[in-house]
Amino acid sequence: MKIKVTQEKLSKALNNVSRIAIGKVTLPILNNVLIRVDNKKVSLVTTNLDMAIMDFLPVSSSEDGVVTVPAKLLAEFVSNLPKGENIEISSKDTKVDIKAGKYSSTINGTLADDFPELPEIEEKKAVVYKIGVDEFKASVGQVIIASSNDLTRPALTGVYFNTYDGKLAIAATDGYRLAEKIIIDKVESEVKAIVPSSSLQEVLRSISDDVEEVEISFNEDLVRFRLGEVEIISKLIDASYPDYQKLIPKDNEVKVTLDREELIRVTKLAALFARSVGGSIICETKTPDTFLVKSVANEFGENDSEIKTVVEKDGRVNFNSRFLIDALNSLESKEIEFEFSNRVSPTLLRNTKDKKYTHIVMPLNS
Amino acid sequence: MKIKVTQEKLSKALNNVSRIAIGKVTLPILNNVLIRVDNKKVSLVTTNLDMAIMDFLPVSSSEDGVVTVPAKLLAEFVSNLPKGENIEISSKDTKVDIKAGKYSSTINGTLADDFPELPEIEEKKAVVYKIGVDEFKASVGQVIIASSNDLTRPALTGVYFNTYDGKLAIAATDGYRLAEKIIIDKVESEVKAIVPSSSLQEVLRSISDDVEEVEISFNEDLVRFRLGEVEIISKLIDASYPDYQKLIPKDNEVKVTLDREELIRVTKLAALFARSVGGSIICETKTPDTFLVKSVANEFGENDSEIKTVVEKDGRVNFNSRFLIDALNSLESKEIEFEFSNRVSPTLLRNTKDKKYTHIVMPLNS
Repeated sequence: MKIKVTQEKLSKALNNVSRIAIGKVTLPILNNVLIRVDNKKVSLVTTNLDMAIMDFLPVSSSEDGVVTVPAKLLAEFVSNLPKGENIEISSKDTKVDIKAGKYSSTINGTLADDFPELPEIEEKKAVVYKIGVDEFKASVGQVIIASSNDLTRPALTGVYFNTYDGKLAIAATDGYRLAEKIIIDKVESEVKAIVPSSSLQEVLRSISDDVEEVEISFNEDLVRFRLGEVEIISKLIDASYPDYQKLIPKDNEVKVTLDREELIRVTKLAALFARSVGGSIICETKTPDTFLVKSVANEFGENDSEIKTVVEKDGRVNFNSRFLIDALNSLESKEIEFEFSNRVSPTLLRNTKDKKYTHIVMPLNS
Repeated sequence: MKIKVTQEKLSKALNNVSRIAIGKVTLPILNNVLIRVDNKKVSLVTTNLDMAIMDFLPVSSSEDGVVTVPAKLLAEFVSNLPKGENIEISSKDTKVDIKAGKYSSTINGTLADDFPELPEIEEKKAVVYKIGVDEFKASVGQVIIASSNDLTRPALTGVYFNTYDGKLAIAATDGYRLAEKIIIDKVESEVKAIVPSSSLQEVLRSISDDVEEVEISFNEDLVRFRLGEVEIISKLIDASYPDYQKLIPKDNEVKVTLDREELIRVTKLAALFARSVGGSIICETKTPDTFLVKSVANEFGENDSEIKTVVEKDGRVNFNSRFLIDALNSLESKEIEFEFSNRVSPTLLRNTKDKKYTHIVMPLNS
């Protein structure tokens, strides 16, 4: 195996793929990156068994072959070489020589036979969507925060891609809050698939500035994200997703419009005093024009702030301040709609104009 | 107690002092900031018993009094208030009311009686030095990295301020490397004092952009740093400092001049391969023109790089790569002098021109 390539290209590709190369004690080869040269095409592959990242590398010359080497060591070595240097990597059995001008190294690699690769997407059977990269990044960011870390409920540790009414939506919930975003308004083919949040995080991290579009392909048990020269294949979570639509309240008793920045500020102020009571804060509406955010009086003291707005009905609801701040940070518009009914129904938060994003937060009992 | 002050001024002062307010379980009042108003002068004080930070605050109006409140809570509360807001703080017994426009809070404070304050510097007996802030920051940064964390040798956990030959020098060593910098070329009065590195770190963090000069005053067991409106008083370390001067080699057998950036690069490359051997790397000189940096061959592989320079004598020395990289990062000039004698004598590193900074690294036995 032999390749010649510039420092910049190789370093970028290695940094992309080496993040997930965290070997398990029982399977140290997962520390490695597979370098495969096949008919002038060079690919770098890493996997953590749940997902794989592939980067296809344009090289100036090559000889076929395949080898695996410790991914982080190679990535750090290459990133410390001078920019603009031409790098030659060649392997003989498991010895991998790296030469770049007056710098030279030999890294001990491993035969590629034991390297586990994920199965590939069957192109013919795949359901494929395309979405602009900015829209994709923003939308996944808005939804993924509501997904859970609780491994005892695997479905909730992912983001649910689902089509309904001819639209593609993504949704996530941890049981305390729920976020949904319509990401494509009109789709032909249907999908119901739970993508692990950890894989989606890697997809977000792998998007480089030159990528314009994300291609998402679903098979029965796999999803592939294509981002320019980078491909990420992940297993889907094999579980059924809760029927989240019915959790979104259709009509709330109390509706107010609030300045988002101002609500973030007063929520943060109240949250400072709420640390000893699990972050619990109180939101209250008072006709005709007052929205109050308060902390419960406790050992630290107490705090209250008010925002002026049109209020048609008195009401009161308790929240975990962290969930409210997360929700407000995910919304985008200057003014937002804040709707609730009573102390047990979920509170709904939306941008005043664009209704594609829905965030609901369950109140705390009090 | 009552003060009126702008959000910007109060927030800056609270952020300055609240960093060290980390209460110990046995003495929770150390979480607090003491706010004292005395004849129109307002001071904020925190202490961790080893040191105290004081910030003197210009206020628009005030009433005398004193109270203590949780420092971090107050600092975060004020930093979340809108910039430009006028803040009024008033206390009655231990209740501290904070009002800023439509935002209001009551923080539960504590009577000031139990607040431990450090003794003050006796001005008459003090030895005082003044130094430009940029020179001070750079010099302390160059030296403090060589100080130790090992609490069993208290002297080495500080930076030694000492005068000799009419100059003021600061020095630190952890037994593996030593750094010394002459910070004032000509001084009248003498000092030998060990300032805790932790206190010096706080001094560095407390220097704001508008400070131009640092005034350093020593008493027998205290040091005070004056940085504009901020004063930091710290206990000195009560121990005798080793006679470090005799560790600095006066004449070495092998002397080479090296490009600093290039030596950093090749040391980092070698260090990547040295992780399994405790960071040990090899530097070799070969007449007439080669300086080699190599890693010891091990399970990961091996690496070597060369730098061309004038070499008059063959030699070889082993280092902990981390210490060499620290030393090189502390040096400043494009080219540096690298001098060593044999495998057990310390290696000396200096800028080629400015000789005020000296860094020595002990070799590893091999």
